[in-house]
Amino acid sequence: MGLLGLDIGTTGCKATIFDYQGNVRATAYREYALENPRPGWEELNPDKVWQSVKEVIKESVSGYRGTEIKAISVSSFGEAAVPVDRKGNILHNSIMYVDKRGEEEVGYLREKLGEEKVLQITGAAIHPMYSIGKLMWLKEHHCDVYQKTWKFLLYAEFILYKLGAAPCINYTLAARTLAFDVTKLEWSDEILDCAGIDKDKLPEPVQSGTVVGEVSKTIAEELGLPQGVLLVAGGHDQPCAALGAGIIRSHLAVDGMGTTECITPAFDRPIISDKMAESNFVCVPHVKEDMYVTYAFTFTGGSILKWYRNNFGFEERQEAEKKGLDVYDLLIGKAAKEPTDIFILPYFAGTGTPYMDTGATGMILGLTQETTKGEVIRAILEGITYEMVFNLECLERAGIEIEELRAVGGGAKSEFWLQLKADMMGKKVVSLNVSEAGTLAVAMLAGTASGVYKSLEDAVDKLVKVKKEFYPDEKLHQIYMEKYQTYKKIYPALKEIMQ
Amino acid sequence: MGLLGLDIGTTGCKATIFDYQGNVRATAYREYALENPRPGWEELNPDKVWQSVKEVIKESVSGYRGTEIKAISVSSFGEAAVPVDRKGNILHNSIMYVDKRGEEEVGYLREKLGEEKVLQITGAAIHPMYSIGKLMWLKEHHCDVYQKTWKFLLYAEFILYKLGAAPCINYTLAARTLAFDVTKLEWSDEILDCAGIDKDKLPEPVQSGTVVGEVSKTIAEELGLPQGVLLVAGGHDQPCAALGAGIIRSHLAVDGMGTTECITPAFDRPIISDKMAESNFVCVPHVKEDMYVTYAFTFTGGSILKWYRNNFGFEERQEAEKKGLDVYDLLIGKAAKEPTDIFILPYFAGTGTPYMDTGATGMILGLTQETTKGEVIRAILEGITYEMVFNLECLERAGIEIEELRAVGGGAKSEFWLQLKADMMGKKVVSLNVSEAGTLAVAMLAGTASGVYKSLEDAVDKLVKVKKEFYPDEKLHQIYMEKYQTYKKIYPALKEIMQ
Repeated sequence: MGLLGLDIGTTGCKATIFDYQGNVRATAYREYALENPRPGWEELNPDKVWQSVKEVIKESVSGYRGTEIKAISVSSFGEAAVPVDRKGNILHNSIMYVDKRGEEEVGYLREKLGEEKVLQITGAAIHPMYSIGKLMWLKEHHCDVYQKTWKFLLYAEFILYKLGAAPCINYTLAARTLAFDVTKLEWSDEILDCAGIDKDKLPEPVQSGTVVGEVSKTIAEELGLPQGVLLVAGGHDQPCAALGAGIIRSHLAVDGMGTTECITPAFDRPIISDKMAESNFVCVPHVKEDMYVTYAFTFTGGSILKWYRNNFGFEERQEAEKKGLDVYDLLIGKAAKEPTDIFILPYFAGTGTPYMDTGATGMILGLTQETTKGEVIRAILEGITYEMVFNLECLERAGIEIEELRAVGGGAKSEFWLQLKADMMGKKVVSLNVSEAGTLAVAMLAGTASGVYKSLEDAVDKLVKVKKEFYPDEKLHQIYMEKYQTYKKIYPALKEIMQ
Repeated sequence: MGLLGLDIGTTGCKATIFDYQGNVRATAYREYALENPRPGWEELNPDKVWQSVKEVIKESVSGYRGTEIKAISVSSFGEAAVPVDRKGNILHNSIMYVDKRGEEEVGYLREKLGEEKVLQITGAAIHPMYSIGKLMWLKEHHCDVYQKTWKFLLYAEFILYKLGAAPCINYTLAARTLAFDVTKLEWSDEILDCAGIDKDKLPEPVQSGTVVGEVSKTIAEELGLPQGVLLVAGGHDQPCAALGAGIIRSHLAVDGMGTTECITPAFDRPIISDKMAESNFVCVPHVKEDMYVTYAFTFTGGSILKWYRNNFGFEERQEAEKKGLDVYDLLIGKAAKEPTDIFILPYFAGTGTPYMDTGATGMILGLTQETTKGEVIRAILEGITYEMVFNLECLERAGIEIEELRAVGGGAKSEFWLQLKADMMGKKVVSLNVSEAGTLAVAMLAGTASGVYKSLEDAVDKLVKVKKEFYPDEKLHQIYMEKYQTYKKIYPALKEIMQ
């Protein structure tokens, strides 16, 4: 028997069928493209996504050599909403979180309600990326669409709805609207009234892992699915990645080492405070009941290595091609073996948390004529990690202590990087047997909802295994802690100048 | 008929025979190595240098297909002295300017005389690199050597002395001792008394271009030189490079674009002031009578391109080798065509003037994921040039205005770089027909002293030709002037942090 996990990303969707032991039994992926009807506008065509999802389901199911599929759940990016009418017709493209629209609208909320109130309700600072500003814009500029809309669905449950479920929204995605009370776990009348958005146009909020329907007969036939496959509310991609790494108790965090880097710790109560706010840390529901997560992240990470590879890594690209090796393995293999005196501020795409300064740029300091390529490569890894050390410090200041980081994503393949991370952070870092944390998480939700696992704890116990543990070298940690004092001073000193 | 110019560098010596039209007719070069008897000690063996000089003279003379050699002059690095006895025996290795010895000794001078007084006399700030500290050390630690010393000779005139001249020192080298009154053009009794150095152990100061003897018969025979070749007092390498570029009037400066970058403007009176001192600008006699020069410089320049080439230029090194092209041409050819938003502070070997901060390091700011290799390469050229723009501003503040820069050295081969320099500086920049400015300058001194030329002006008119002129693009200049305001703020903001 199998569990089908779907992940809806901004540029493509993936279906993975797992057996109950968590082994990948079939997988399929389709890309789709954002649309740019005007400069600064970024839209996604929901029908294209739906068609792609159908394709990946069909492909994975036809490639699946097991017996039946028991249940399906979905993770997705947040914020963007799909307006549908009562017949399920899509009324407008989704306005993506990077789209410039909604700035004026959230400015109105800020003016009327104030930052503090919105923060206390939603656990997040007012920002145009959230759904609410986009809905307000749509109401103002396309009133007909707004009027015709029965429900605004976010992507994970838009897909469930198209598969046959009732319209709903899981708490983790609801938290991406900036209209959801994350403590009471219900829509905020105060925010919706102020925004002029009708609550009945929003779907019912449900806990991730709730059974919300079955695949409809027509769709089951079309996709080659059996009858009676359960549809289970999924989650926002970030908390799903945390669940997929087994982050279902306090003091644990997943460290997603991809193009960007994001640490997602879990905790057992809502933490909404000045200390959280000043570091731009949100507080949002986890996919695990009664737990919350926050995100400490950079907008770069592996992307800086990629930038280095593309611009300065000709030698390694050539070598990788000749020898059939991975170019990142080659690059990291050349990293200096000792801590460097170089500081790289990884703000190549602005800063993430805590500063959230979109105007910041990358910096390299401490270069001499003796600086080697290997030192620059190590300094890239160090720089990304200094920034995460800084984020951990801000998290601790806000009361979120992390004892163990579970690394996932491309960067987690490098044991060198994981050891460096442990040394710099002074924390235990582990790698996992999990390669598809996102879809595994929704498979866990689906499996738990359908009785395959007794609980999420049971699912995690069965499916998430630690591959290798990395413990800090205390001497190196001390060296890095001294250097870190310097690292922290650089951005504040240059902030004004570099604007 | 020919003129023989010698240049004594710290790692090798060169002989060039010019005809009276300034054409190179023969040339020879020999390397020698510094000796490190202890960590931090850097010595040069004067006999090794003398043997090498004899070899390059022999080689150039034997390769010279003209008729006779009329006169010889010599340029050299400064500071390091050779102690000789009355028979011309060398009594000790020369202690080089980079040698750590002498710090305590100049500290004593600072305490007794004060910075201001020494500055007013010598035109330079107290620093252990100058000869005086090394002589004090020698007297204290090798009193026997000091006692036996008849004269302490600096390298240019040590070579003339070995060739047959009377012991002397030209004003430009005398200024490198920190015991020379640059206004009165005589040894400073006050400094020598305080230092405890006997004035009669120092050679007689003479104007560069003074005839100081003839090649001795024995040496002439040994080296294949005719009888009666005049020996002419030369100069310190920097003012010689200025003369070789025709810098013999105010508002002109030579811009030596080598491993380091050094702008040497000439002016017609000694300028010793707080404004000069605060930018660490010395005021020293020029090789041209009644004129003075100063040095505005970085400790890097082309060396950063070399650093880039060695570490990140594999592609270009490979291409250069395959196609038989110059790797720097290839690199500069890839530089972005528009001004970048990147700032590179070229302090890869500490700063030069005005800060003279040996602890500073190189920095790169303004990087994004879209930054290209070509932008980084252009930013290297821009960074070196911003630093020289800053130096020009400091020079102007001290009353030294420059209208035209004459570029010499490796970097001057790049028309792209010269145009960039003109655009950034907002000044006329020219390239010259001169490839060996240093030895050409001493050939001019030799030729003028021996009557080949009526004057140095006449020599410059005949021998130094402008090859190409580069005028600033006013629009680009304005863009760069705006960016420069940011550039200037970076170092002060980070100075404390990076210590």
